[in-house]
Amino acid sequence: MYRKLTFILAVVFALQLVDPADAQQSTKKPLTVAVLLFNGVELLDFAGPAEVFIVSDHGNAFQVVTVASTTKPIKTMGGVTVIPDYAYSEAPKADIVVVPGGAMSNVSDEGVSWIKKAHKTSKVTMSVCMGAFLLARAELLDGISATTHRWGLSGLRSSAPNCKVVRSRRFVDSGKIVTTAGVTAGIDGALHIVERLLGKEQADWTANEWMEYKRPDDTKDDN
Amino acid sequence: MYRKLTFILAVVFALQLVDPADAQQSTKKPLTVAVLLFNGVELLDFAGPAEVFIVSDHGNAFQVVTVASTTKPIKTMGGVTVIPDYAYSEAPKADIVVVPGGAMSNVSDEGVSWIKKAHKTSKVTMSVCMGAFLLARAELLDGISATTHRWGLSGLRSSAPNCKVVRSRRFVDSGKIVTTAGVTAGIDGALHIVERLLGKEQADWTANEWMEYKRPDDTKDDN
Repeated sequence: MYRKLTFILAVVFALQLVDPADAQQSTKKPLTVAVLLFNGVELLDFAGPAEVFIVSDHGNAFQVVTVASTTKPIKTMGGVTVIPDYAYSEAPKADIVVVPGGAMSNVSDEGVSWIKKAHKTSKVTMSVCMGAFLLARAELLDGISATTHRWGLSGLRSSAPNCKVVRSRRFVDSGKIVTTAGVTAGIDGALHIVERLLGKEQADWTANEWMEYKRPDDTKDDN
Repeated sequence: MYRKLTFILAVVFALQLVDPADAQQSTKKPLTVAVLLFNGVELLDFAGPAEVFIVSDHGNAFQVVTVASTTKPIKTMGGVTVIPDYAYSEAPKADIVVVPGGAMSNVSDEGVSWIKKAHKTSKVTMSVCMGAFLLARAELLDGISATTHRWGLSGLRSSAPNCKVVRSRRFVDSGKIVTTAGVTAGIDGALHIVERLLGKEQADWTANEWMEYKRPDDTKDDN
């Protein structure tokens, strides 16, 4: 009986030494974030969210990979050249899918099929800016609320007539689909996903401490 | 005499038809923005300012190029692979030099020499985040005010003892040198340079219309 009590006390003491958050971190595999790329993709549409996921939780929570039609170099809008990590057919299963905007006509039907397939097994699929039009092509906006760059709001209403297109919001969280307004709003959408998955403290740390980014007030009032 | 007057009136009338801003744009070559890259460069440190310059004036005002030790692919912090456009020795003369932060120890003395050389003929040289430490290595901060990521402020005071290191500012404009606070503050620094070179209207359009970015209040009060 004495030995049993000693054992229980030892276990309880040991548990005090382990920070539950650390314990969770050390046993958890990073979540895979797959970022769609294509010729003419808007640089900050993908680099903003990518940065958020890369630095969150000191780089421990997410693994960011880039996915395109092939692994040949692509030119982003404005000319910066990026080599995608994976072709569609080779891409790993994604926990988070990021669909940026830009020259969306360069995304083939194979690309739209990849979005659909990746979305089936993702926790969250997010579009940034005009990337919402690619989600519309993938028929992922039917029956939900969504947003896009202010210049695309009326066009999106035509492209996705069964979607409730919302204006004046940095992002719209419709559960498995998160859509954002233009360019820099992708940062807010990604921080919101970090908040959903890792908690507000982690999202605030990523924004305030690492990225020195003050989230606009309208990111606080989610619908 | 009558013909001379008619000619003068015709010229005056013709001048009214030409928007001075358009005239300037149509005859001016885009300014070259050279962005330093290196293995471990922080993605948003360079992608934020690059985006600003790429989209300003509908993409007509600036040509963004990337420069590194070689044109072999480099891995940015977090893994996105970028192919630099030019090696140091081949880089074109830059009107604006952008020096981001990240794994700065990967920048060799040759890289620091390129910064010095490029700065000699630039209109503006800007650092983003910890990139200020590279400007310190290039001895470009002596006798001026500068800032960096909040985590680097005291370190920069040691690295650049003759620099007045300023805290709580998105950017510091010291004339030919502009330094910014962490990561997203690079966007504010670049917008400030657009404002200096193209005017407030262009900078506001780039921020508010294209990038859907609300500049924090402390970017309005420059020193």
